Amino acid sequence: MQYLNKKLIRVALGQEPAEMILTGGQLVNVYTGKIHPGDIAVAEGRIAFIGDVKGMAGEDTVSIDAGGKYITPGLIDAHLHAEVPKVSLTRLANAIVERGTTSVMTPLDQMGVVNGIDGMRWVLDEVKKTSLKVFHSCPSRLPYTTPASTIAFTFGPKEHAVAQKWEEAVGIWEYMNDSILDFDEPVFEAAEMAIRNKLTLHGHAPVTMGKNLAAHVTAGMRDDHESYTPEELEEKLASGVYGLMRRGTHSDNIPACVKVVTEKGLPSNHLCLCTDDLDCSDITGLGLIDYLVRYVIKLGIDPVTAVQMGTLNTAECYRVDHLVGSVTPGRIADMLLVSDLESFTVDAVIADGNLVAEKGKMLTPAPSPEYPPEFYTTMKLNKKKTPEDIYICVDKKVVKADVLAVHLEPEEGLLSQGREVTLQVEEGRILPDAEQGVNYITVTDRHSGEGLTGRGFISGFNLKEGAIATSTSPDDNNIICIGASVDDMTAAINHLADIGGGQTAVKDGKVLADIPLPLCGLMADISAEEMTELEGKANEAAYSLGTVLKRPFFFIIFLSITAIPEYAMTDLGLVAHATRTVVDPVKKVYT
Amino acid sequence: MQYLNKKLIRVALGQEPAEMILTGGQLVNVYTGKIHPGDIAVAEGRIAFIGDVKGMAGEDTVSIDAGGKYITPGLIDAHLHAEVPKVSLTRLANAIVERGTTSVMTPLDQMGVVNGIDGMRWVLDEVKKTSLKVFHSCPSRLPYTTPASTIAFTFGPKEHAVAQKWEEAVGIWEYMNDSILDFDEPVFEAAEMAIRNKLTLHGHAPVTMGKNLAAHVTAGMRDDHESYTPEELEEKLASGVYGLMRRGTHSDNIPACVKVVTEKGLPSNHLCLCTDDLDCSDITGLGLIDYLVRYVIKLGIDPVTAVQMGTLNTAECYRVDHLVGSVTPGRIADMLLVSDLESFTVDAVIADGNLVAEKGKMLTPAPSPEYPPEFYTTMKLNKKKTPEDIYICVDKKVVKADVLAVHLEPEEGLLSQGREVTLQVEEGRILPDAEQGVNYITVTDRHSGEGLTGRGFISGFNLKEGAIATSTSPDDNNIICIGASVDDMTAAINHLADIGGGQTAVKDGKVLADIPLPLCGLMADISAEEMTELEGKANEAAYSLGTVLKRPFFFIIFLSITAIPEYAMTDLGLVAHATRTVVDPVKKVYT
Repeated sequence: MQYLNKKLIRVALGQEPAEMILTGGQLVNVYTGKIHPGDIAVAEGRIAFIGDVKGMAGEDTVSIDAGGKYITPGLIDAHLHAEVPKVSLTRLANAIVERGTTSVMTPLDQMGVVNGIDGMRWVLDEVKKTSLKVFHSCPSRLPYTTPASTIAFTFGPKEHAVAQKWEEAVGIWEYMNDSILDFDEPVFEAAEMAIRNKLTLHGHAPVTMGKNLAAHVTAGMRDDHESYTPEELEEKLASGVYGLMRRGTHSDNIPACVKVVTEKGLPSNHLCLCTDDLDCSDITGLGLIDYLVRYVIKLGIDPVTAVQMGTLNTAECYRVDHLVGSVTPGRIADMLLVSDLESFTVDAVIADGNLVAEKGKMLTPAPSPEYPPEFYTTMKLNKKKTPEDIYICVDKKVVKADVLAVHLEPEEGLLSQGREVTLQVEEGRILPDAEQGVNYITVTDRHSGEGLTGRGFISGFNLKEGAIATSTSPDDNNIICIGASVDDMTAAINHLADIGGGQTAVKDGKVLADIPLPLCGLMADISAEEMTELEGKANEAAYSLGTVLKRPFFFIIFLSITAIPEYAMTDLGLVAHATRTVVDPVKKVYT
Repeated sequence: MQYLNKKLIRVALGQEPAEMILTGGQLVNVYTGKIHPGDIAVAEGRIAFIGDVKGMAGEDTVSIDAGGKYITPGLIDAHLHAEVPKVSLTRLANAIVERGTTSVMTPLDQMGVVNGIDGMRWVLDEVKKTSLKVFHSCPSRLPYTTPASTIAFTFGPKEHAVAQKWEEAVGIWEYMNDSILDFDEPVFEAAEMAIRNKLTLHGHAPVTMGKNLAAHVTAGMRDDHESYTPEELEEKLASGVYGLMRRGTHSDNIPACVKVVTEKGLPSNHLCLCTDDLDCSDITGLGLIDYLVRYVIKLGIDPVTAVQMGTLNTAECYRVDHLVGSVTPGRIADMLLVSDLESFTVDAVIADGNLVAEKGKMLTPAPSPEYPPEFYTTMKLNKKKTPEDIYICVDKKVVKADVLAVHLEPEEGLLSQGREVTLQVEEGRILPDAEQGVNYITVTDRHSGEGLTGRGFISGFNLKEGAIATSTSPDDNNIICIGASVDDMTAAINHLADIGGGQTAVKDGKVLADIPLPLCGLMADISAEEMTELEGKANEAAYSLGTVLKRPFFFIIFLSITAIPEYAMTDLGLVAHATRTVVDPVKKVYT
């Protein structure tokens, strides 16, 4: 975007008619915190003037009457992995803009893993044709996993040198505490490059305080979205780190985080709202940042402060406050009409100066583009998997084994623990044990064709039979499969390869439910509502296999993230977060 | 500066000993607004860790006991023309660091006019050897004057392309309202380049509200230091513009500006402190930002808020909050020890992690460098001036004339008005008239050798006899001379050319006082105290000539600024701000 725009300036000066005039609203000024009448003139998709707009309308000027409603800036998601809801970016744009979120900060890291920097660029160009503003933060590195698991395209200093210069570039993303502790050279190189390019470093520091936090902040971490307690967030804020308060499908840190304001009395101007990772059903059922604004208001945050957390604060954090985050001259004319501030009901959405949505529905949804052929050919497995690729084997003399299973407690979000459990062994195969709540978990490389499969045990999913699998799985988007039955796991993995990617539940060799994700094995070109329906059916199928998790297909995708304590699975095997090494899940065998 | 610093990270992690440890202080945390005990470990001149520093000291670690004093970040001047105090940058650094200002935002525009981009670069390298951090904002254009007056080196898009890439670059400077209203192409080009380079646009919009302000903000103005009333500042803040509250020698806008907080209740986080232009005697007599912190506290601002205005807010405005503006990990270790927050007494200054000043005195002042020869040869006048170069002449038949004089009211700062007055004419020469308070004013090109002289009348200086002149004069640094006697004006101008630049007062052909400024005709390599003494003597000399201004030698330098209403003088003649054109000061003649 050319920032200096002569037509815009002329409209501000009253020398040319505005393209749109919005009158009769109560403007929520996020800079002053005041609410006052504010008529608004728009040109070139941007705010030209606020005040007495008499005489600024011409013959072709569109007039909108705000009818006394509040006018707020369009909302901003401060940290969103945009591929996770599993619909194309165009479909996602339609779904979130109509609910009031007009900008997102995202890395497109899943696209990067599967289709490389060219895929990321393609998607950034795709969303330019929608009403959504996408700011891009380059993944600190791809894969994020340590040790590096198999992916199709890495992202390192060479890619940073290109992508950090893109117009959408705002920083580097998931700048992980581990990378600092490990003195990760390519990440340091990318971070230094970002500082030179006047970008900012967006951290990932779960459960990090004291010296580890200080080390991370000395290395330039500007914000973090992984605070689990008010004390953790307070220490980060006191260290000059913006606090992105997160509620995603997997983690709701908001009630803990808002206490830094409601109980500790800290200033709110460095607090932002983000969703991180979401099922589509959360978007359609709750909303995106509109929901979080409502949520924090219910938890005691003043409505204007809540709006600031969802707009200006994030824009300032990312240093794009000259573009978005407020209704002031020069900014992109993204505005919401809100009938009641306390309940934050978004009645209409104006994007780029056009009325684009009313009553939660796009007036004209952005049409789907034709995707490039390489988006459809990302599932690469040279040969079918067999049960022998899945079983964890020991000497045939062994009768039982003590193993270390990854254990999940649903209320702890993505934080996993280790659980030691004793399993039976038959003919050298360690058997999963549904009675004890222990399933098999495998991660199979789907990028190189080789199909390397890491194998381990998982506790907390509680499948009693069958298997579930996914080809979308940040951080490496390999096929994660969990099963009570090795045969069904084999069938599920091969099925996903056959259909070009997706999520599936299999029982007795039969597919119970599918979410086909033909775009890169990550996304489908269907509406958020259609995806919500598929998610519902897939989860129902998983429930029928006995899982106790509410969102089994959502939780499964994160099991390869090595940057979250304590354990992860990749195609290399079981990874211990504390040491960032592959460890043998078999601890002791009994003959 | 390499930002990612492994040694710093290792010290933060406790893996290597700190270089300095500061214990026993009460840390003013500008992010949380809280004050709490905070022991600090420093390495590589930067903050490594805050908290329990036990075990972080090694054999060579320097320990400083804060003795219960408050620890604040080093102060930042948000808008300073660093050449105006007339001492070299090294001398200035010593004078302001010892008083607690450890960073300044400056354009070095006077250097640019006289010695070009190479001169600016030389000075930036000079100050690297001091304790002062200089952030550089490229002049939006040089000359600032409209129409362009004569200078030695222009600064346009070609120079921006170089200087915007300097490590010290933070933006573009004196981004003038006039440039927006005039659709100044080279300035627009420089501004667009700055947006691409992720720099910010630092405005200059005196007495600007409504549509003119909106136009300026649409063009990207991030901050402004020219608010004269609370209403003007409020409108700027509401438009998303940072308010740099100024008290310089010529303009004290602080009492008006603080009312946006104390009376209007607006948030303070977008308010900063700046001095803009100062006589050395203000630095030595009052202080720099330390004085402004004390000043706003006296006017009702909470001390912690005052410290934020002088530190973090400015760092955020300029997007250098990862480098300066707070005592948090990663930032440069510039800190003040303050015994009482309310009276803001700076007892000691730590810069780059070293104790550099105690009780207002540098322990080891930075030594003066050897300046390049071209700094000493900037006064270029091909031939001596004669009275005929000064007189404003009309037809010999004329007996009196109505003229338009530039009129100053001292309490209005730099804002001038027009005053119509009738003067006597002798032999075609319009005579100055001390009785009516009207002197001659001339501006003589000292850059090209040609010595073009613009001529006009000035009211408000009230010289009864003699003349005063200066070769330092933003915006074009030509020789401004004011006199009751044309002969003495001639002598003063020729004298300045002879001595290589400076300021002088002349009576009856004799020099009453001089401030020699051999460095570029702008600065002297003498201490701020020595300069203060010279300023005192020069002003005394001017008082003896009858002026009623307290700082005649300070006010005279600004008379060529065409961007301030209503009138200015350049070597082209009298310039009307409203039209940005040269106008004839002679309005009507009587024969």
